[in-house]
Amino acid sequence: MAASLWFRGAAFSRRYWSRRLQPPATNLAAVCSRSMASKTPVGFIGLGNMGNPMAKNLTKHGYPLIIYDVFPDACKEFQDLGEQVVSSPADVAERADRIITMLPTSINAVEAYTGTNGILKKVKKGSLLIDSSTIDPAVSKELAKEVEKMGAVFMDAPVSGGVGAARSGNLTFMVGGVEDEFAAAQELLGCMGSNVVYCGAVGTGQAAKICNNMLLAISMIGTAEAMNLGIRLGLDPKLLAKILNMSSGRCWSSDTYNPVPGVMDGVPSANNYQGGFGTTLMAKDLGLAQDSATSTKSPILLGSLAHQIYRMMCAKGYSKKDFSSVFQFLREEETF
Amino acid sequence: MAASLWFRGAAFSRRYWSRRLQPPATNLAAVCSRSMASKTPVGFIGLGNMGNPMAKNLTKHGYPLIIYDVFPDACKEFQDLGEQVVSSPADVAERADRIITMLPTSINAVEAYTGTNGILKKVKKGSLLIDSSTIDPAVSKELAKEVEKMGAVFMDAPVSGGVGAARSGNLTFMVGGVEDEFAAAQELLGCMGSNVVYCGAVGTGQAAKICNNMLLAISMIGTAEAMNLGIRLGLDPKLLAKILNMSSGRCWSSDTYNPVPGVMDGVPSANNYQGGFGTTLMAKDLGLAQDSATSTKSPILLGSLAHQIYRMMCAKGYSKKDFSSVFQFLREEETF
Amino acid sequence: MAASLWFRGAAFSRRYWSRRLQPPATNLAAVCSRSMASKTPVGFIGLGNMGNPMAKNLTKHGYPLIIYDVFPDACKEFQDLGEQVVSSPADVAERADRIITMLPTSINAVEAYTGTNGILKKVKKGSLLIDSSTIDPAVSKELAKEVEKMGAVFMDAPVSGGVGAARSGNLTFMVGGVEDEFAAAQELLGCMGSNVVYCGAVGTGQAAKICNNMLLAISMIGTAEAMNLGIRLGLDPKLLAKILNMSSGRCWSSDTYNPVPGVMDGVPSANNYQGGFGTTLMAKDLGLAQDSATSTKSPILLGSLAHQIYRMMCAKGYSKKDFSSVFQFLREEETF
Amino acid sequence: MAASLWFRGAAFSRRYWSRRLQPPATNLAAVCSRSMASKTPVGFIGLGNMGNPMAKNLTKHGYPLIIYDVFPDACKEFQDLGEQVVSSPADVAERADRIITMLPTSINAVEAYTGTNGILKKVKKGSLLIDSSTIDPAVSKELAKEVEKMGAVFMDAPVSGGVGAARSGNLTFMVGGVEDEFAAAQELLGCMGSNVVYCGAVGTGQAAKICNNMLLAISMIGTAEAMNLGIRLGLDPKLLAKILNMSSGRCWSSDTYNPVPGVMDGVPSANNYQGGFGTTLMAKDLGLAQDSATSTKSPILLGSLAHQIYRMMCAKGYSKKDFSSVFQFLREEETF
Repeated sequence: MAASLWFRGAAFSRRYWSRRLQPPATNLAAVCSRSMASKTPVGFIGLGNMGNPMAKNLTKHGYPLIIYDVFPDACKEFQDLGEQVVSSPADVAERADRIITMLPTSINAVEAYTGTNGILKKVKKGSLLIDSSTIDPAVSKELAKEVEKMGAVFMDAPVSGGVGAARSGNLTFMVGGVEDEFAAAQELLGCMGSNVVYCGAVGTGQAAKICNNMLLAISMIGTAEAMNLGIRLGLDPKLLAKILNMSSGRCWSSDTYNPVPGVMDGVPSANNYQGGFGTTLMAKDLGLAQDSATSTKSPILLGSLAHQIYRMMCAKGYSKKDFSSVFQFLREEETF
Repeated sequence: MAASLWFRGAAFSRRYWSRRLQPPATNLAAVCSRSMASKTPVGFIGLGNMGNPMAKNLTKHGYPLIIYDVFPDACKEFQDLGEQVVSSPADVAERADRIITMLPTSINAVEAYTGTNGILKKVKKGSLLIDSSTIDPAVSKELAKEVEKMGAVFMDAPVSGGVGAARSGNLTFMVGGVEDEFAAAQELLGCMGSNVVYCGAVGTGQAAKICNNMLLAISMIGTAEAMNLGIRLGLDPKLLAKILNMSSGRCWSSDTYNPVPGVMDGVPSANNYQGGFGTTLMAKDLGLAQDSATSTKSPILLGSLAHQIYRMMCAKGYSKKDFSSVFQFLREEETF
Repeated sequence: MAASLWFRGAAFSRRYWSRRLQPPATNLAAVCSRSMASKTPVGFIGLGNMGNPMAKNLTKHGYPLIIYDVFPDACKEFQDLGEQVVSSPADVAERADRIITMLPTSINAVEAYTGTNGILKKVKKGSLLIDSSTIDPAVSKELAKEVEKMGAVFMDAPVSGGVGAARSGNLTFMVGGVEDEFAAAQELLGCMGSNVVYCGAVGTGQAAKICNNMLLAISMIGTAEAMNLGIRLGLDPKLLAKILNMSSGRCWSSDTYNPVPGVMDGVPSANNYQGGFGTTLMAKDLGLAQDSATSTKSPILLGSLAHQIYRMMCAKGYSKKDFSSVFQFLREEETF
Repeated sequence: MAASLWFRGAAFSRRYWSRRLQPPATNLAAVCSRSMASKTPVGFIGLGNMGNPMAKNLTKHGYPLIIYDVFPDACKEFQDLGEQVVSSPADVAERADRIITMLPTSINAVEAYTGTNGILKKVKKGSLLIDSSTIDPAVSKELAKEVEKMGAVFMDAPVSGGVGAARSGNLTFMVGGVEDEFAAAQELLGCMGSNVVYCGAVGTGQAAKICNNMLLAISMIGTAEAMNLGIRLGLDPKLLAKILNMSSGRCWSSDTYNPVPGVMDGVPSANNYQGGFGTTLMAKDLGLAQDSATSTKSPILLGSLAHQIYRMMCAKGYSKKDFSSVFQFLREEETF
């Protein structure tokens, strides 16, 4: 019996879910029993670069935390602040009926929810589980299904904005899940972000993020190509940026985050591409877009090539630079 | 005999000019003798879809016209309005010392300037010749050189904006040429456009336009891919557009000219992709970008693929549709 | 406990296996108890277009069959021939200790092995399970691991060659698995194919097939592009093919399976692209290549674009044509 | 003055010739007066890496040479051998009625034929002018037209094979021009190459070479991608190459010039990618393919991307390595 359970995974769930367009109805009776009004403890799993400042913003809003991270050191700071540190996701679930997870990959998320000591081992009926990791939407859907079986509620709520936005509480959350639960999610997410957007059924939060980041990668590379070509044709970079920004070539990458050093202040291109959104992270998100496109048979000609370009950049020493360093990558002159 | 001099084309001039980075100094003495203050006749060559409304806007501002078009019918309307129609570009040059040319391709422009009965046959010293055609910047540079030999001034001033903007006098002109002459060009171009932008030496007007349109093509295809992927992943198109437009995926193609039917009003996607900027024209501009990139050895990975995509669309029945129809092109479902 | 088993799947196994480079040791004691010398019954699961002629070749070599297919009709022909038809993969495993599976997708394979009535429910210790489906190598590895837990042996052995080669017993098998078991696999596979190639550890059979087909797709599209460009530049197609084939452009797609009608006889291009290897199947294999490349972070710039091209062709009416019809797809002329 | 006539370049001639599909008839009366039977002097212009050994092979076959190179040093060796060195292409044309030109770019070829002291200044009626440079076929066509006006004959005959083949007289010549003159060309070209292939009208020699090299670039990159992916999936490189070479992925790049170090002996990949066909030269040929495709509106999706990849390699330190070094370029591992 267990064996048959085993081999479903991303590939399977994609196909499975594409046939079941309707998300499963939530067990509302169970849901209603969850504490919401008062500031009862909130679970937080994953205290990395992003999770750390996010969790702190929750404490600033008065929420006691029950925390867990696979690296005990990541919890120490919170322990010193008086928050409760436990030794597994299951233990978090035993003590909190609202839990936020912020993990680096699909596999970490799956482990945190369904592992030997995962959340699902001790989750209470009616709990609200919000996953802010950026993962394959097909995995989000599958997690939601398992959570639902336990009588709890799952929402995917990936974020846009980096460490700076996490610190200042200005993240954007893209939220997928049962609409009736959105207000409950918003109560917590609003402490960490300035925009909390409802996107639709479970998985659509991930979908929105993936689509945005794919388009971002495409327009960033496009901006880099156009700026580089223009410069080689004799145009002044600042003037070219100004022209693009008043014309139909305008995009966020040209008017807010221009990749050419000297064109704008306060962006990574003005600081040797330090900080910002790393090339490795962009390559990861494009990999998710690629997976989603393959499974839904959606042609993404430019998205696919953008993925390969960021993949190459990771192998050519750009992995830790901001993703706008694609300008530098393309700019190198031919030498003989 | 001289005419044949003229047809040096792109391949040659690219290499030639890449060795001569400095544009030739203009003969200022000659230039100063040109009439500028009063509304003396202005020559206009090329009265097509764009040239016709542009020329009309000049007459509205009180400029008498000396006009020529290879298709006599294109001139009839102006003749009826009392404008002077002549039988060759040379004849235009004999009667006007400010001339605007608006032609479909590099070869037409070369013919108009350097053909057997071309402008250069009778151009007066000090004349101002403004070419608003969209052509290879290398050809613009070469034309400028020949014009300069005759003691006249050449500027490239391609336009952005379609027939509607031409009619309402709201075109954007991107102008390349000697800066001292920009004011003189602006006097005329300002009658036909609401933006007249100085871009630098001769050829940079073309360069700016080519770079803008390449980035436009890339972000349009990117928007179409992202919207299509999002829809297949279960997102509502309007909501997805809204999310992109408040995020880093924002671009002119997503927020002003969205390619998905039903998302915006008053754009070609709301009207079965009628009107707007045709796929064939975009393919042409991308061909110019490709030529410029090849000759300057600039990598344009996405630009090059965008070129191929619009090339294919032209062959699949999309040639007359607006270039945002790439969404429709990508959207078609697999059938078995 | 069961829950934690659940969510592993393709995404998980990729990462998991990349850390465990050594395949698990096989339980040799168990293996030795399997019957090999005499022609005991062989199980066959999946009697589709390919499985049907493959199974028949086994009977021609004197092997009695125990067969199963989800579509009972597919078994009827064999029943009439006196072969034993059973009602589930588990029932096959109960009656045969050598089983061949030939299924269309990863999910079908997973179901056949690990489903409620899957092979693993009743597999005998020491059985040899050979999967000839073309699936994600990461799934093959995971199946192998589960099979091993039951004390049996799993090998992946995808085929190259179409229905014709299946009928004539001329398939090529690319086999991954424990080398000690290769001879046992060869005994059966040699009845159905003329080439049985040992590729290495489990999953390498799939890897070899995927790599071959990706290169095939790339050179086919490349051949189509080169032939089309040459024809438009004035070359005679037969002459161009001859030149390529005596030069460094030579490839299987140019010299054995030329995509241009009129160049060769007896190939799909000579028959309106009927028969051969369908565009849909190529798109599927390229999807597997894409998945494998993403998970191993291998840049496949051309492979990725080839995937998108076949994806588009599927949506433009080419899904049932041979994959060499990409020539026709590219050839269409621009019309105005 | 006439010289300037000559520099009509690619852009113009493309459009011009696309309207004049029939090549001009040759003046046969004039042609017949040319010396052919005895070994009269042959002109050779361009004694670079390729031209030098080619010219030497002509002397080995007993042809006296009249030579010219823009770099006098390149001629010294021949002067020492007793060949006649002159000071311009015109002087070559004055002394020889069969001339071979071997120059690096279109512009050099145009200069040699139509420059102030170009061949056409003193070409004799009936002379046979063979251009072995690799240039834009549109330029070849235009040169042919000018040559014809002088009553002489022009053929394009680009070579395949590198410096080694040039030394050993084993080049392949792809010849375009009037078929009646092919035998005359063959007499000379056969001294320098082992294959002399007639391709059709003027320009088709270039077209054949460009198409071959585009397909070569595509299959080389494809081979590199497939080998790299296979290795990362656990396959042994030699075994994978063997499998591809017996399957449908087989191509010249996999079976004769494998790009993976250790797979074959005697190829550039076995020698740190020294020697062979340089990345810069491949990038140049792909630029010609791109130009030809743009002007004939032929979609070359993979060809175009291959061009961009070789363009990038030139900027990343691979310009002097053999073009099979694309394997090394793709192989670099991601580091963090």
